Amino acid sequence: MFDGIFARSGAAAEVGDAAWLRALLDTEAALARAQAREGAVPASAARAIGAACSPARFDAAALGAAAADGGNPVIPLVRALTAAVHDIDPEAARFVHTGATSQDIMDTAAMLVVRRACGAIAAETGALGAALADLAARHRDTPMAGRTLLQQALPTTFGAVAAGWLNGIGSADTRLADVAAHRTAAQLGGAAGTLASLGPGGPAVAAAFAAELGLAEPVLPWHTDRARVAETGAALAVLCGALGKAAHDIVLLAQTEVGEVTEDAGPGVGGSSTLPHKRNPVAAVATRSCAAQAPALAAGLLGAMDAEQQRAAGAWQSEWPQLSALLRLTGAAASWLRASLDRLRVHPDRMRANLDATGGLLTAERVTAELAAEMGREAAHDAVAAACRDTGGGPGLAAALERRTGGRRDSARFAALLDPADYLGAAGVFTDRALAAHRARPAHEEGHA
Amino acid sequence: MFDGIFARSGAAAEVGDAAWLRALLDTEAALARAQAREGAVPASAARAIGAACSPARFDAAALGAAAADGGNPVIPLVRALTAAVHDIDPEAARFVHTGATSQDIMDTAAMLVVRRACGAIAAETGALGAALADLAARHRDTPMAGRTLLQQALPTTFGAVAAGWLNGIGSADTRLADVAAHRTAAQLGGAAGTLASLGPGGPAVAAAFAAELGLAEPVLPWHTDRARVAETGAALAVLCGALGKAAHDIVLLAQTEVGEVTEDAGPGVGGSSTLPHKRNPVAAVATRSCAAQAPALAAGLLGAMDAEQQRAAGAWQSEWPQLSALLRLTGAAASWLRASLDRLRVHPDRMRANLDATGGLLTAERVTAELAAEMGREAAHDAVAAACRDTGGGPGLAAALERRTGGRRDSARFAALLDPADYLGAAGVFTDRALAAHRARPAHEEGHA
Amino acid sequence: MFDGIFARSGAAAEVGDAAWLRALLDTEAALARAQAREGAVPASAARAIGAACSPARFDAAALGAAAADGGNPVIPLVRALTAAVHDIDPEAARFVHTGATSQDIMDTAAMLVVRRACGAIAAETGALGAALADLAARHRDTPMAGRTLLQQALPTTFGAVAAGWLNGIGSADTRLADVAAHRTAAQLGGAAGTLASLGPGGPAVAAAFAAELGLAEPVLPWHTDRARVAETGAALAVLCGALGKAAHDIVLLAQTEVGEVTEDAGPGVGGSSTLPHKRNPVAAVATRSCAAQAPALAAGLLGAMDAEQQRAAGAWQSEWPQLSALLRLTGAAASWLRASLDRLRVHPDRMRANLDATGGLLTAERVTAELAAEMGREAAHDAVAAACRDTGGGPGLAAALERRTGGRRDSARFAALLDPADYLGAAGVFTDRALAAHRARPAHEEGHA
Amino acid sequence: MFDGIFARSGAAAEVGDAAWLRALLDTEAALARAQAREGAVPASAARAIGAACSPARFDAAALGAAAADGGNPVIPLVRALTAAVHDIDPEAARFVHTGATSQDIMDTAAMLVVRRACGAIAAETGALGAALADLAARHRDTPMAGRTLLQQALPTTFGAVAAGWLNGIGSADTRLADVAAHRTAAQLGGAAGTLASLGPGGPAVAAAFAAELGLAEPVLPWHTDRARVAETGAALAVLCGALGKAAHDIVLLAQTEVGEVTEDAGPGVGGSSTLPHKRNPVAAVATRSCAAQAPALAAGLLGAMDAEQQRAAGAWQSEWPQLSALLRLTGAAASWLRASLDRLRVHPDRMRANLDATGGLLTAERVTAELAAEMGREAAHDAVAAACRDTGGGPGLAAALERRTGGRRDSARFAALLDPADYLGAAGVFTDRALAAHRARPAHEEGHA
Repeated sequence: MFDGIFARSGAAAEVGDAAWLRALLDTEAALARAQAREGAVPASAARAIGAACSPARFDAAALGAAAADGGNPVIPLVRALTAAVHDIDPEAARFVHTGATSQDIMDTAAMLVVRRACGAIAAETGALGAALADLAARHRDTPMAGRTLLQQALPTTFGAVAAGWLNGIGSADTRLADVAAHRTAAQLGGAAGTLASLGPGGPAVAAAFAAELGLAEPVLPWHTDRARVAETGAALAVLCGALGKAAHDIVLLAQTEVGEVTEDAGPGVGGSSTLPHKRNPVAAVATRSCAAQAPALAAGLLGAMDAEQQRAAGAWQSEWPQLSALLRLTGAAASWLRASLDRLRVHPDRMRANLDATGGLLTAERVTAELAAEMGREAAHDAVAAACRDTGGGPGLAAALERRTGGRRDSARFAALLDPADYLGAAGVFTDRALAAHRARPAHEEGHA
Repeated sequence: MFDGIFARSGAAAEVGDAAWLRALLDTEAALARAQAREGAVPASAARAIGAACSPARFDAAALGAAAADGGNPVIPLVRALTAAVHDIDPEAARFVHTGATSQDIMDTAAMLVVRRACGAIAAETGALGAALADLAARHRDTPMAGRTLLQQALPTTFGAVAAGWLNGIGSADTRLADVAAHRTAAQLGGAAGTLASLGPGGPAVAAAFAAELGLAEPVLPWHTDRARVAETGAALAVLCGALGKAAHDIVLLAQTEVGEVTEDAGPGVGGSSTLPHKRNPVAAVATRSCAAQAPALAAGLLGAMDAEQQRAAGAWQSEWPQLSALLRLTGAAASWLRASLDRLRVHPDRMRANLDATGGLLTAERVTAELAAEMGREAAHDAVAAACRDTGGGPGLAAALERRTGGRRDSARFAALLDPADYLGAAGVFTDRALAAHRARPAHEEGHA
Repeated sequence: MFDGIFARSGAAAEVGDAAWLRALLDTEAALARAQAREGAVPASAARAIGAACSPARFDAAALGAAAADGGNPVIPLVRALTAAVHDIDPEAARFVHTGATSQDIMDTAAMLVVRRACGAIAAETGALGAALADLAARHRDTPMAGRTLLQQALPTTFGAVAAGWLNGIGSADTRLADVAAHRTAAQLGGAAGTLASLGPGGPAVAAAFAAELGLAEPVLPWHTDRARVAETGAALAVLCGALGKAAHDIVLLAQTEVGEVTEDAGPGVGGSSTLPHKRNPVAAVATRSCAAQAPALAAGLLGAMDAEQQRAAGAWQSEWPQLSALLRLTGAAASWLRASLDRLRVHPDRMRANLDATGGLLTAERVTAELAAEMGREAAHDAVAAACRDTGGGPGLAAALERRTGGRRDSARFAALLDPADYLGAAGVFTDRALAAHRARPAHEEGHA
Repeated sequence: MFDGIFARSGAAAEVGDAAWLRALLDTEAALARAQAREGAVPASAARAIGAACSPARFDAAALGAAAADGGNPVIPLVRALTAAVHDIDPEAARFVHTGATSQDIMDTAAMLVVRRACGAIAAETGALGAALADLAARHRDTPMAGRTLLQQALPTTFGAVAAGWLNGIGSADTRLADVAAHRTAAQLGGAAGTLASLGPGGPAVAAAFAAELGLAEPVLPWHTDRARVAETGAALAVLCGALGKAAHDIVLLAQTEVGEVTEDAGPGVGGSSTLPHKRNPVAAVATRSCAAQAPALAAGLLGAMDAEQQRAAGAWQSEWPQLSALLRLTGAAASWLRASLDRLRVHPDRMRANLDATGGLLTAERVTAELAAEMGREAAHDAVAAACRDTGGGPGLAAALERRTGGRRDSARFAALLDPADYLGAAGVFTDRALAAHRARPAHEEGHA
């Protein structure tokens, strides 16, 4: 019922039942290949196991139901896989899952799921980055009010604002890509993390197993060192934070009274069931509704690090739905923000009108600064504040400044100092720097796949 | 894939797509009936709308997909419902959803979902309470070691331990039932919470609407006062906390070295994929894996109270998956703990053997207390500690106490004081009180339905 | 450094070192009195202990430092208290702390701290309720734009908005008062929850102990049933949620472009270090900064329910700073919101101007409703939407409606229907109901004390 | 009262009032030096400002109280600093805080606080790493039971267990050091992030400012891109997770019935107020009580990324206490775990006795594996399970295996296969690898300072 909102983007499919099943089977097949490579299993058996590891042969729902008996879906999967291999090559059946414990398979599959879902997220963020870069470049010199504590503060540009979104999302995305590329490791430790059943060749099999899957080889099994999962969760939540921040700004800029942007998606989208005139920023709102769930899920994964001894009694299992949800929601948040940007209409005229609405109050800082050099900071501050209070901004402000400062400048000079479009500081420079940083960022989709 | 673990119990069905669809339709039908009652809508139209509000007429997945356009599933549902009513009675179609905003329907439906899912949870906790009461009564006088900071401390009884679980779960369950019965309110405010489109009769319609559904009538619309949802989340998480605590104890008591209980569920359940001898406490572990997710979800719902103005731009929407997940997981945790208790074998012999293993160290407190009256607390404490250190417990402790206390008692008297089965204090009284409190608790299933 | 912001209100003092010390000593004194009442301790000893339980005799910082040795401050406190009693009456010294374990004293003291800090919070919320009720009454008929998803939706009144804040905060406050009054229980179980060292009279002493302190007597010791603490945390977080919601609205209404309220606190307050003209809503912002921390702290306390056996090995101890912080922050949030309201200037003229700015778009719903009866909902919706699109609101809207509806009304009638001040629905009724509910709420300060 | 537990380690001082004051003053002084370097301020003024930036000149408590007026402590600090500079060099006073907004100073100071507190944490983790490496090396070949779901599973070594702790903590520590070294950036953007008041030279001043403090120069101001803070929080929480995991294991190994380690800290430490014989693992318990608070605090910081426009209205301010608490608690957790290890006595005899207690059940996997090659996995699994059930382990198991497998081996061969000390797999190899990784890790204390 809510999938249209929370399961948007390819990440949803990558954390679904079919994707988990595929990842589990890929893992079992890779284990057999790794053992064949090390001579622990006949090559023919590995081939038979590989052939049997086809998702179409298995019923994810039935495995899920059977998972209840042993507490994880690997136990019924191994039984079903053994039967499937037996049908292909009876000799090969006894080589299924050799040396592995259920957690080896689940954890390795989870890493594949992370990689693949992060690839889907990267597809969204890649497009999003391009859209944001375009937006920042186009509006590099569009003045608007900068707002602190939701009060107009000083002028800035919409380009600089968009550059801030771009840089925040781009950096978070890069760090997520790093985690997905470098912190996803194969797991192979056997029942107590010693690989005892594989004999002296255990570590070599584990190395081959990681290589087969393109995953990192850990220093030692990480059955109860859950930092990889927790860090993945944190990186996802940071990305959600960056996405949610941009969406929050869009919602604020789209307010009726601000009107500096609108989401415009054509008839039927963003309409209200009762208010025909409304143009709700539906996509930005949906971004926020996805992103808002991330911190708690990340906390759940951080809490799951509290793992007992050689296998956690509950914490480990709690990772599966939480990690899946976080991957899915991050993908959805990215996809929604992308939709919001696709729909976004920017209104530079409203930006300018809002800038002018305070009648120069906004650039009072500049006057303070100019006067501080000769009057001292505090005296300048007080004089400017008094002039602002006298007039509440507007045409009279320049004259009030002349009066309150004892005529240190004439009112024409004050009027010039108060022009917001002439007081944009480094907004353009910062926009250019964010664009350059964006271009320098690796297109990381390959790394994920 | 994980539903066998996390979607166990009837609560899962009560938060699924079909259940949400049914709740939304029940809400629209009740709205029409309420308006008919108040004369705002013809009775025949209300009947036609009621007839159309049959889940079988609608496709939850399609509605969910269409929900993306407007940000909630009510908008497409109203269009589909209007069409369905039109097929039955063209005149009635224009009375569909009159006066309501999407959030009115969603929030009221959410309250129905809460009630129904809490009813399913109560079915689990009711059975659980009976099982726990039986356990506490049967083991009212079974001595075992009480353990603090996981160290044996003083004797207690397994009855008192089970009574603690019973009381914790029973109290939490009662409070959840209170929330489900008294804090679930109808929502009807229209687009900005004023019911303006219903004219002067608005409040009367709202009262009739609540009455139709058996929900509380709020003081005023609660579109952005989300305490009801947050409190429901907190009550669910508290119940999860009580369930998880009991499961944690079971896991600890089932440890190989403690062995005081085992989960015994027959062949194939709780086995390991590699370790044929293991009897994993799968159900208790699964309880923990469900319950562990609750605090973060409750925090997510508490955070969603930060709602803007007359409708939140993201926080509200984030409630749907989080509330659904929390209801589902609470049901699953209760169901798993019930399964754990069904499977539980208690081993009084191991309890006694563990009690005796410290050779009297456990009852040293009693000796300290007896001696404190004449030696002073600290001197008694120090003497007993010294005797404990001298012997490490065991047969020699009584003699060491005689020596370290300067012969204040003879060793036979010390040996009698050290008998754990004679030092159970109010364990039985407390067990009886918990059982009495259990019996006094209302069977609240009806209240939920 | 940050106490001016986060430790505002009397609640801060009630969770400080001196308050904890006082609560611990009150608890030890009450234990002695209870035992004297039950004949387990001489009355003279109880008097001596009571006399010694004076905070001035103890050094909280030194106790805190010594707490590290045993993991809680009660162990060094008992040593120091025993010495202090010895100075008064050497005979009495051996009756100090009789029958209790450290957790009994800590938990009972924590309940006293909760009661007292909730009393301080109630002092803030009491004043806050009065201020909100006054605000709602004064602005019962002040029209303003209702806003959903931060878009103007339909007219409402500022009175109804303030009534919503009042009701949300008042309800949350009442529930916190309930928890503080009814869920705060004495703790007396001894080392393993059996009261063994007190002999058969243990339960009677426990009952007397609770009565001495005016705390509830629990069914059985709750050393590892932490629902009381978790529920307190949840109730505090819900109140923070209600406070934060009101503050959020104030921040949004105070935006430069909205300007419907301002915080006006005189020179030097709410000013910016660089922008002399700014009138930041500092108090509302500070409310939010306090309230925003609550959900995570509540989650921490919910998580601490996962307590092992008869005393938790870490979870219990983690409650102390988290509960203290949550009480302190709730008090501060309430105090800040009260300050915001004290400073609040309401601008009905800006409210009206904002209402008018959309040129009738806001009341389009009313037109839709009026037309729906004859055209059908969807046709009416579409026609009104088209007219809105044609004109973007403003003087031409009435004429466009005439045209788009095929002249179902003339433009004068449409203009009348579009007047926002005539379309306030039940805003006044709801305001009155919230005021009545406020007056009906018990003044609960006594209940807390 | 609780500082002995939660404010242990040098990190506590680095987040205290004095440390924040020092960091704020270091920041103001660096700003003046940077501007002097760029010619924007006379060198003599920078010197005077630097001279005035001495913590002894300021009253942190008074500044904290005054912070309430403007919502942050920088506003009163700048006034006080200006006065102090004026006393030294009246000409210089007007160059104080030039170009900066309050948030520039707070954020930069926060980064210094992070660096310094992480340095203090690193001092703890450095010592901890050395202790863990020593422990792992000493017990490289000490057999013990590996436990999954708290059930004995297969043999491992205590060296491998300690190596797991070492690797988990070492990796988390390295990542925290990376964050502290590379993600701590200077903040200088002025009132709206454009550096407008500094004119064209703004970016050069910002670069010099970062260089003066040894902090990274950001692409653009990060006033509302809070990823740096959120990532720091996540890295701290991950380290807490690794510390808490080790502490959890110690608590479990120290259980009365397991007895494989004890914390032994001499008289008075770890004693119970009522149970003289107890040797509570106080330091491990305290580690857990600190670490358990981390996930919620990290979630709070992740949630604070939801920052409005150019300065957040509440979220930003909420970072200060949460970040401070998280740094302090991480330091305390590390310090406590170090204390636990200092006190740790390891009992290889108990490890061996526990291993033997299951009478060969533990090594049943090995038998299954050996038989699987000839019987097939499932048949072997079933036969071994049956033999385990028949005997419950113990001397009869070898004979039962002979019987249940139809004599595929004789019972002497089965007995040899069941010897746990001969079935340690790669435990030694993994221990060696963790030690090598530890030695290869940079001693990062310098990086932090």
